[in-house]
Amino acid sequence: MNDRQALDRLCVNTIRFLAVDAVERANSGHPGAPMGIAPVAYVLWDRFLRHNPADPAWPDRDRFVLSAGHASMLLYALLHLTGYEVSLDDLRRFRQWGSNTPGHPERGETPGVETTTGPLGQGFANGVGMAMAERSLASRFNRPGHDVVDHQTYVVVSDGDLMEGVASEAASLAGTLGLGKLICLYDDNGISIEGSTDITFTEDVPKRFLAYGWQVVGPVDGLDLAAVEDAVREARADAGRPTLVSCRTTIGYGSPKADTPDAHGSPLGAEAARAAKETLGWPLEPAFLVPAEVEEHMRRARERGDAAEREWKERLAAYASKHPDLATKLSQRVYGRLPEDWDAGFGDLYGPESAPVATRAASGKALNISAARVEALFGGSADLAPSNKTLIDGAADFSLNDYAGRNIHYGVREHAMGSIANGLAVHGGFIPYTGTFLTFSDYMRPPMRLAAMMGLRVVYVFTHDSIGLGEDGPTHQPVEHVMSLRAVPNLTVIRPADAIETVGAWRAALTNESGPTAIVLSRQKLPVLAGADDVRAAADSVPRGGYVLWESGGGGSDPEPEVILIGTGSETHVALAAGRRLAGSGRRVRVVSLPSWELFDRQSEEYREAVLPRSVRARVSVEAGVRTGWERYVGLDGAAVGIDRFGASAPYEELYEKFGITEEAVAAKAEALLSRTVAGRAR
Amino acid sequence: MNDRQALDRLCVNTIRFLAVDAVERANSGHPGAPMGIAPVAYVLWDRFLRHNPADPAWPDRDRFVLSAGHASMLLYALLHLTGYEVSLDDLRRFRQWGSNTPGHPERGETPGVETTTGPLGQGFANGVGMAMAERSLASRFNRPGHDVVDHQTYVVVSDGDLMEGVASEAASLAGTLGLGKLICLYDDNGISIEGSTDITFTEDVPKRFLAYGWQVVGPVDGLDLAAVEDAVREARADAGRPTLVSCRTTIGYGSPKADTPDAHGSPLGAEAARAAKETLGWPLEPAFLVPAEVEEHMRRARERGDAAEREWKERLAAYASKHPDLATKLSQRVYGRLPEDWDAGFGDLYGPESAPVATRAASGKALNISAARVEALFGGSADLAPSNKTLIDGAADFSLNDYAGRNIHYGVREHAMGSIANGLAVHGGFIPYTGTFLTFSDYMRPPMRLAAMMGLRVVYVFTHDSIGLGEDGPTHQPVEHVMSLRAVPNLTVIRPADAIETVGAWRAALTNESGPTAIVLSRQKLPVLAGADDVRAAADSVPRGGYVLWESGGGGSDPEPEVILIGTGSETHVALAAGRRLAGSGRRVRVVSLPSWELFDRQSEEYREAVLPRSVRARVSVEAGVRTGWERYVGLDGAAVGIDRFGASAPYEELYEKFGITEEAVAAKAEALLSRTVAGRAR
Repeated sequence: MNDRQALDRLCVNTIRFLAVDAVERANSGHPGAPMGIAPVAYVLWDRFLRHNPADPAWPDRDRFVLSAGHASMLLYALLHLTGYEVSLDDLRRFRQWGSNTPGHPERGETPGVETTTGPLGQGFANGVGMAMAERSLASRFNRPGHDVVDHQTYVVVSDGDLMEGVASEAASLAGTLGLGKLICLYDDNGISIEGSTDITFTEDVPKRFLAYGWQVVGPVDGLDLAAVEDAVREARADAGRPTLVSCRTTIGYGSPKADTPDAHGSPLGAEAARAAKETLGWPLEPAFLVPAEVEEHMRRARERGDAAEREWKERLAAYASKHPDLATKLSQRVYGRLPEDWDAGFGDLYGPESAPVATRAASGKALNISAARVEALFGGSADLAPSNKTLIDGAADFSLNDYAGRNIHYGVREHAMGSIANGLAVHGGFIPYTGTFLTFSDYMRPPMRLAAMMGLRVVYVFTHDSIGLGEDGPTHQPVEHVMSLRAVPNLTVIRPADAIETVGAWRAALTNESGPTAIVLSRQKLPVLAGADDVRAAADSVPRGGYVLWESGGGGSDPEPEVILIGTGSETHVALAAGRRLAGSGRRVRVVSLPSWELFDRQSEEYREAVLPRSVRARVSVEAGVRTGWERYVGLDGAAVGIDRFGASAPYEELYEKFGITEEAVAAKAEALLSRTVAGRAR
Repeated sequence: MNDRQALDRLCVNTIRFLAVDAVERANSGHPGAPMGIAPVAYVLWDRFLRHNPADPAWPDRDRFVLSAGHASMLLYALLHLTGYEVSLDDLRRFRQWGSNTPGHPERGETPGVETTTGPLGQGFANGVGMAMAERSLASRFNRPGHDVVDHQTYVVVSDGDLMEGVASEAASLAGTLGLGKLICLYDDNGISIEGSTDITFTEDVPKRFLAYGWQVVGPVDGLDLAAVEDAVREARADAGRPTLVSCRTTIGYGSPKADTPDAHGSPLGAEAARAAKETLGWPLEPAFLVPAEVEEHMRRARERGDAAEREWKERLAAYASKHPDLATKLSQRVYGRLPEDWDAGFGDLYGPESAPVATRAASGKALNISAARVEALFGGSADLAPSNKTLIDGAADFSLNDYAGRNIHYGVREHAMGSIANGLAVHGGFIPYTGTFLTFSDYMRPPMRLAAMMGLRVVYVFTHDSIGLGEDGPTHQPVEHVMSLRAVPNLTVIRPADAIETVGAWRAALTNESGPTAIVLSRQKLPVLAGADDVRAAADSVPRGGYVLWESGGGGSDPEPEVILIGTGSETHVALAAGRRLAGSGRRVRVVSLPSWELFDRQSEEYREAVLPRSVRARVSVEAGVRTGWERYVGLDGAAVGIDRFGASAPYEELYEKFGITEEAVAAKAEALLSRTVAGRAR
């Protein structure tokens, strides 16, 4: 063994035992994967990864994704050793309250963590999104002699990642798109939690990836650093295909639990940890040992990174002097700024005099007006673009032959779509949007959850809301989806009542920089509502989440209403009609449009009280979905009109009648409440 | 063309134009796929499918699944023509209220429809489940010379099905398990809604399936009936591998819209429909034409089916006389009956004196006690069995080498697991159960929804509930999942408070024959609660969904409580402790355990009023999840203790403190309410 080999070995073992020691100390975590894949990750970080630990946000850095997020200590060890702001003390506080070293990597918690991983398959698909982002930006901004966007995306994946369907979906799309700068290092250790992967996963993974149009390199011995280095070099050499580098590794390498599931998800225990150190020739004490030569060698990443970023900045300066407008735009993109007057034209789209229009159609208009100025908008549909109205008119398709295209064809792959959108968002430079039927939001909940957790600006266009889609029947009629999306923290759900609110929903979505927004849209035409004109004309109704749409007396100085009707989306006009009917019978009625619970609940108590006074307990909500949850606004004394069963296949007008979601039913509920509660007051 | 060929052609065109005419009449639907795949489906139904239109429930029939559910009219036409109870009038009422021909095939609505399809990928994975069911039953019940279980599973899949990740997951598992009697006919028409599949799906599908360990036959010309027949014969000949038969077809064949997305999802329109009839030599009038020779030929399926079933019944009788016990058991299995005393031993598992135990561990015990008598229990986990406690002790693995094994290793494939469970359930003979962490329920929502829609008895074991799992952090801490599962119609969600309720949850789940049940379980140990002993000892608490666990005065003749504390799952003991604390300060307190909203809401109003009197408005709920929705029980005047954000990575005891889910916090909320509302009454 020469000096370099000895040093490499020392570095690899440092990574291994930082992981082992941190898991032991936390008495919780996953030692096996870091011990197995450490040599592969080390080669990547030591020989290839272009990054700057002093500036984790450097836009042209290579992206590194640990899709096997349970191996978090591998990543934290690498971040610490290469000089990110992750100290040895941070490693000692692995998995503790307030530390920057949580159980699974979380974007925003730890410098250098690109994306939150742990739920398997997500990181892989995020990586596909990042590689798409790179190609898109490069195609838009690079100019001959000026490659200001030029970086790789590396992903470490486990067996578990590759078993998940989302990875299959994303891999197929990555192959179709020929994402040559995407390189996945497959930690093929042959062990899953329930035993050998043979019990459930006998497929030929390399052959599967070849079928997707990938390059496959290997299998290589994951302990053979030179072989890994050659493999990564080969991967990088193929510019036209993504590459899977298959690495044979041993889970828990060096420990008595090696090659068994016992090495996976719990501490080795003092005895096995000691035995591992002995086997690999590592000092038993102290824990968290970083030999000086390892520190010196690996910290050089800072110098290299600093030099690389400086060199890039020089290139960027040259580019800026030659292409100042492009440079300005690139900067806007990277920092996520909306251009001036991005929403000019929103105000002219619809007014109280507009003819009835499906909110999905209004959404398509708002998207297109935004996209004309907001170049960052980049997205598409899971093969339902003509129905979702998600195409950017006149823009090309994003394809192997045209990475400048802006319309992504995701195929029937909702799950990958959501995860790729996250990859685009965390890469920077994009406001991704997706499109599918609302019922298929169920297929993409895992990445929506992660977008919410990471606080990413992603816009979900969900059309064909509820029974309003009619004949396709219950499989396609989402009755529980709106409510179950409302349960997700930091996901803003907007179900606009008409075209005017739909435009407002897009404004709310694009200006929401700290989380994703789901816009829930109708297939059927909806009347544009004439309500309290001042509010609606000002288009500030949606940002408040809920507002008084109409009052029987015209609002203002009138006495408190006897009854409040609350509608969302396609049922708001039903509530309004019921309100007018009740007013015709002499009732004092208020009709509230409540397109977004999240936005409404964020308003001041004063505002909320002004819209929904606590003292008025005769309240009826109407929404063509499950009623569970509506007690939040109607309480124990009100009533909810909705559907507590799956829908049915029939023309939609008939379904509304059959399910009792009508003006008459809402008015009748209100009258029943009023006859029960004296004057509509609970006390 | 000989006579037979002419007849075949007539039959195929009859199918095509029944589909075209029905879609035209409904002015809604999908004509293109039936027109393209009709010859392939016809060959299958005419030459191979062993079924009896007079008895759609014949247990040993071949299973036919139309995974591409949007092609529903293909199936309805076949059902009508072969003599199921689907009349021409039914076809004329396609997609209308109350008809048995809904937009997508729905199990239970139409005789002969095996499973509800439409959401893509589901039918394919259901088919894998059915094929597993067949192998499992055959292995358990067949005896030399007595093959009483012996049938094929045929699935028609589209491009869209094969793009979905769930299909990839299921295909990989089917290959691992060598399900030789599973045959998938791939309708490769090269067209998706957004255009040619080339824009998003350039992978080599046959090569991918070879990588999974499948046999691949073809591509064959989908218009060439003899070629299709040969291909299916070849598929059947390979007993050791599932087969994909790749069929080149033309969407909208014969119409001017052929080979374009326009043929997919809307009526052809009068003009194109007429042109198609002219092109294929079909009379323009009448619509819904079934030539007499077609009717005569295809109705022979009834005679063939009747003979086949009669022959099977004779074999079954011979089997029953030789193996009477087995025959009885088989019958019990097929008709879904639980054996006598299936739950003997439940009562002895836990009592008020039991030591603290994680509810996941109690669940493992209840599962094992049940499984000892309920042979129909068949399931496993998505690679988390040791954590989910879903292994049946002493049982073998279900594998290629042992189809008698009862423990399924699903691999890290939650979505396929859910869909396969549906396939097992609709096949008959099984009560499937699944296992994973609750947070990954998001990966399997689509099949859970379909199980609820179909009313299938499936048990979902979801462990590692909420922040109680501690260090793995927010990606693994489900805070919104319980609430969003509660939104799904006909899904019963049970979050047991302790080991006693966990046993009750299993009883409720296994006796719920009309829908799935999700049991939500703790990773951490929970005290076994000592409450009102009569209720808990009777173990009838869980079936009622909610009950009075404890009262400060001991209940009975006491005056009404001032305040009610409501807990679920791992927070019930917190509510109980808070109740005792409040009682210590002289408050009249009631503590309600509410493990299942769905079960509670199904009780009589009288019972619900007895547990939660309307007049008591000082109510505090405590659940370590989102608070949205809890207003259902606490109203506008109560308070919910919960978590409206994602969790964090730390030891769980610390998380409960940090997030304020403690005895002290609950008691303080209650005191605050009591000081606000006079005597705890709203009026």
